[in-house]
Amino acid sequence: MAMRGAVIYAPGDVRVEDRDMPTIEQPTDAVIKLSATCVCGSDLWEYRGINPVERPTPMGHEYVGVVQEVGKDVTSVRPGQFVVGSFMASDNTCAICRSGYQSRCVQVKPIGANGAQAEYLRVPLADGTLVATPDTPDDAMVPALLAASDVLGTGWFGAHAAAVDKGKTVVVVGDGAVGLMGVLAAKHLGAERIIAMSRHESRQTLARAFGATDIVAERGDDGVQQVKELTEGLGAHSVIEAVGTQESMSQAIRSSRAGGHVGFVGVSHGVELPGEELFYSAVHLHGGPAPVRQYLPELIDLILGDHIAPDAVFDLTLPLAKAAEGYRAMDERRAIKTLLRP
Amino acid sequence: MAMRGAVIYAPGDVRVEDRDMPTIEQPTDAVIKLSATCVCGSDLWEYRGINPVERPTPMGHEYVGVVQEVGKDVTSVRPGQFVVGSFMASDNTCAICRSGYQSRCVQVKPIGANGAQAEYLRVPLADGTLVATPDTPDDAMVPALLAASDVLGTGWFGAHAAAVDKGKTVVVVGDGAVGLMGVLAAKHLGAERIIAMSRHESRQTLARAFGATDIVAERGDDGVQQVKELTEGLGAHSVIEAVGTQESMSQAIRSSRAGGHVGFVGVSHGVELPGEELFYSAVHLHGGPAPVRQYLPELIDLILGDHIAPDAVFDLTLPLAKAAEGYRAMDERRAIKTLLRP
Repeated sequence: MAMRGAVIYAPGDVRVEDRDMPTIEQPTDAVIKLSATCVCGSDLWEYRGINPVERPTPMGHEYVGVVQEVGKDVTSVRPGQFVVGSFMASDNTCAICRSGYQSRCVQVKPIGANGAQAEYLRVPLADGTLVATPDTPDDAMVPALLAASDVLGTGWFGAHAAAVDKGKTVVVVGDGAVGLMGVLAAKHLGAERIIAMSRHESRQTLARAFGATDIVAERGDDGVQQVKELTEGLGAHSVIEAVGTQESMSQAIRSSRAGGHVGFVGVSHGVELPGEELFYSAVHLHGGPAPVRQYLPELIDLILGDHIAPDAVFDLTLPLAKAAEGYRAMDERRAIKTLLRP
Repeated sequence: MAMRGAVIYAPGDVRVEDRDMPTIEQPTDAVIKLSATCVCGSDLWEYRGINPVERPTPMGHEYVGVVQEVGKDVTSVRPGQFVVGSFMASDNTCAICRSGYQSRCVQVKPIGANGAQAEYLRVPLADGTLVATPDTPDDAMVPALLAASDVLGTGWFGAHAAAVDKGKTVVVVGDGAVGLMGVLAAKHLGAERIIAMSRHESRQTLARAFGATDIVAERGDDGVQQVKELTEGLGAHSVIEAVGTQESMSQAIRSSRAGGHVGFVGVSHGVELPGEELFYSAVHLHGGPAPVRQYLPELIDLILGDHIAPDAVFDLTLPLAKAAEGYRAMDERRAIKTLLRP
């Protein structure tokens, strides 16, 4: 049997075509029928040719949907349930998972390898990876729940990694979807002041809607200087880095005060951190692939209880068949994040 | 008036000669008569020519002694008191100090600039920098109190930066004085297992005396492999890095489990941390010049109460006049740390 799914052939060349229908391969697998999926900023690394594309590759790692079938060892979800999962499959039982780092589970399997921009998806380690909602949610809640699968969970982790807390001043470097979700997370965690670094007016507006109190449009040393002026010369308590480049990491570290916390969730590309600067900065640095699974129960509750509304991060919705346009719009910065409906 | 003090003229050339007697220059200064001082591992960067020596430079930043004179604004210490101070002078009142990062005080002044390997020392910001002992201690307690001034306080910070806690497995990279004090700190904080990475038998013995439960003699990837084998393949919860080189930082990061904590207190020299490795390691990284002042009251109590005995880190004691031999012995690894008596 076949289904439709997005496949990248080369930079700039994403096609929706027939792919094999996923099946249960391991007794711990589930197959889900996707209600929605989306395009991640990190998908653009391939689309822009920064990560190599060596062969036609299914794309996508963000998903919500309805369980179709489960392997014989799966006990925590059953067919018919609506589920949200993390972009990294994890057993949620090993010592690393139990310490809250499911994205580095000893059995970790990236969902991206299975291509979630599709009609159906095989999810390995279903018991450890998927969280069912109490009931089947209204269709209107689907985008917010989809956000939890990666971009919201990643912003959430960035805020926790940056030790955001009540009364603190937080800088967010990066105005992409993850940065914007970092703003939302910082607001939820009680930050007093949230400085969003953004040059794009539409994103500045959205950042303010999510809770930013100040906008800094300058970059590099000028941006750092602006942050210092807003923080009595000391720098921020917490900095969320949501880009992953040399410039953004430098800006994040230099925007923190001594003893402050930098949470970096932008996937690092070609970054080299100078040890001496890091030493004398005396910052706490923590990041990596977000252990979204840790936050899913909390995020689902907050979304279904209408306490947070992350769905505004999707500013373009297309049918799956138009995935190529969804990539193009994000590449050209016409869209922040594209939701795809299979 | 003159006093005797150690001055470095060139790599390998340390001389004890007449220096000007320090005086009160600012109303916040104190001048103390040193009871003991010592040679730091970081002094060897100049001695070995790794840091440049551009002109004859007074050396030393570790000290204990008796207050001789204070400026008119000094209120917390008075002449006649025995004091211990940090290697970084700090006001202990600014927002950064109050958050526990006195080594990055907005007014910070490195004591090294004044040269503590001498008979007398001017200490800036005396109120924020010096801690008086309740009484004049026995001479036998002087070495342990001297250790608190830097090497013990730095090991203590390394252990805290690495989030050492009861029941955890801790790796210590570096068997110099700071690494050994990191072992002692980890023991005091209740670590269950302390793995000291050391190739030198005398240092292995001392590490065990301070609390190490395991010794790994291998370095680099082989050393990391040994640590993994001792930790069910996961790596340690906490790693204290006490060297400051590319190799030692890599070894520290790779010895940590995902979500673990690396506390780095070796002064970084030429280190470049690859962002991608750091990202996927998912470690917490924190370090810098130790805010020793934060720990001084606790360390003084622990020492005077005979709860910790860091003085064993000094395995060579010489009169100040023989400072050159003290440097030579450390450079040739005949001594771990040299105490100098003025």
